[in-house]
Amino acid sequence: MIGGMLAAYGIPAATTAGVTRYVRYRHKNVVAWGVLEGENVRKITGDLFGKHKVTGAPVKLGDVKLLAPAEPPKIFAVGLNYRSHLGARPAPGSPEIFYKPVTCLQDPGAPIVIPKIANNVHYESELVLVIGKQTNKASVAEAADSIFGVTCGNDVSERDWQNGEKKDLQWWRAKGADTFGPCGPVLVRGLDYNKLLLQGRLNGEVVQKQVTSDLLFDPAAIVSYISQAVTLQAGDLVYTGTPGTTKKMKAGDVFEVELEGVGILKNPVVAA
Amino acid sequence: MIGGMLAAYGIPAATTAGVTRYVRYRHKNVVAWGVLEGENVRKITGDLFGKHKVTGAPVKLGDVKLLAPAEPPKIFAVGLNYRSHLGARPAPGSPEIFYKPVTCLQDPGAPIVIPKIANNVHYESELVLVIGKQTNKASVAEAADSIFGVTCGNDVSERDWQNGEKKDLQWWRAKGADTFGPCGPVLVRGLDYNKLLLQGRLNGEVVQKQVTSDLLFDPAAIVSYISQAVTLQAGDLVYTGTPGTTKKMKAGDVFEVELEGVGILKNPVVAA
Repeated sequence: MIGGMLAAYGIPAATTAGVTRYVRYRHKNVVAWGVLEGENVRKITGDLFGKHKVTGAPVKLGDVKLLAPAEPPKIFAVGLNYRSHLGARPAPGSPEIFYKPVTCLQDPGAPIVIPKIANNVHYESELVLVIGKQTNKASVAEAADSIFGVTCGNDVSERDWQNGEKKDLQWWRAKGADTFGPCGPVLVRGLDYNKLLLQGRLNGEVVQKQVTSDLLFDPAAIVSYISQAVTLQAGDLVYTGTPGTTKKMKAGDVFEVELEGVGILKNPVVAA
Repeated sequence: MIGGMLAAYGIPAATTAGVTRYVRYRHKNVVAWGVLEGENVRKITGDLFGKHKVTGAPVKLGDVKLLAPAEPPKIFAVGLNYRSHLGARPAPGSPEIFYKPVTCLQDPGAPIVIPKIANNVHYESELVLVIGKQTNKASVAEAADSIFGVTCGNDVSERDWQNGEKKDLQWWRAKGADTFGPCGPVLVRGLDYNKLLLQGRLNGEVVQKQVTSDLLFDPAAIVSYISQAVTLQAGDLVYTGTPGTTKKMKAGDVFEVELEGVGILKNPVVAA
């Protein structure tokens, strides 16, 4: 299967100058961060966002279980951030931020679980930022420098809880139920995050497709704006918003988020 | 000053059978959890919510700096949970939950900082629950058992961002700006959390006063409800809601939250 695992994860086989691919993985019951070198993973020792060394012997990508490449103190997300997703709603004057709880993270390949009490669970393909350092009252240029890398994310959303007749006051569970925040499969550093093709596929059919240059507020603008009120920490995630319209998922479905140059985040959907 | 520090923190001097008082503190540049024994703190080794021992030699409470007694993975909060706070709004049919980010925590005695971009920052005196173990789809009885203890909290809120003409879509900064979540001074285990007198004082004047038995959804009901969608983790906090009406704070003010049998959380207000 030489080359097979990279293809399965949608990871470019070619190396690109200045681009580094990080993974978080389990191997023989040990969880670690690593660097992807071709088809091999090499373990990192130290702080991913600070001093660290690549120390491990190469292990085949096919021999490890990839985990969500994230251990965030906080997860931010942005609503209404593509014109194609606004519908009849006016474009916001500034980024509309909300939180997802850390417990909603889910690994690549692991199931999105539809809660028994849920009726209308949608996918949302997104570019996800990974913050590399503490960021407070940052200018847009400083904010750009705070972005360590990106990954793919699915901002899974229960539309009845979010917008229905009996909607909740806030989106705490609409966007935050367990397994509603898959991300991965790799954390990529060094790309131009402002021009990546983002695609969502429901059971193989392309249902979302837009370039991140269409974001109303781009990554640096979002991070700068958040940081005026709330300090971002190393490891924080920012789901940047979803394009187009979305549909309900049901048990048995498979949803894929593909981000150009990053990879494919694939999750089956199951009933609780 | 024998007895003086307990009085300053509003902590009962008398010991009560079955009641334990925990503090988180800095002493000689080391941060630790400890047990309060009279005027003394004794260091805890191990996991506060699991196996631990009280190992430290007694240190005077007056010789340590008390910190927020919390290192939460997540912070939940409840809106509209006292009838006296509803105003013209109907009582909710289930708890209205939202998140505060972990970066908004503030220590007892440390300042609530009014952001330069804020205009209308209010206090909210609250009973805060500290969760003791992972809790998922819990019955009310199981949820009651998941509550490790309680402390005082101030769910500081920017009303223009929350409810104003140009309000944000979600309450991410209205409830989550840095320093908007003071809590402490102690974490108390073993009280009847459903009948504690809660008071808020602005510059010494009582501005909020209600018994926690008036909560529309009591602690166990809140935790059980949250756990149907979102797994609570050991250390998570739940700000349970504020009674009555609230006022704007300004630089130079001092706000105190007093919870019967727990203590007084006192924070000065400063401009950014």
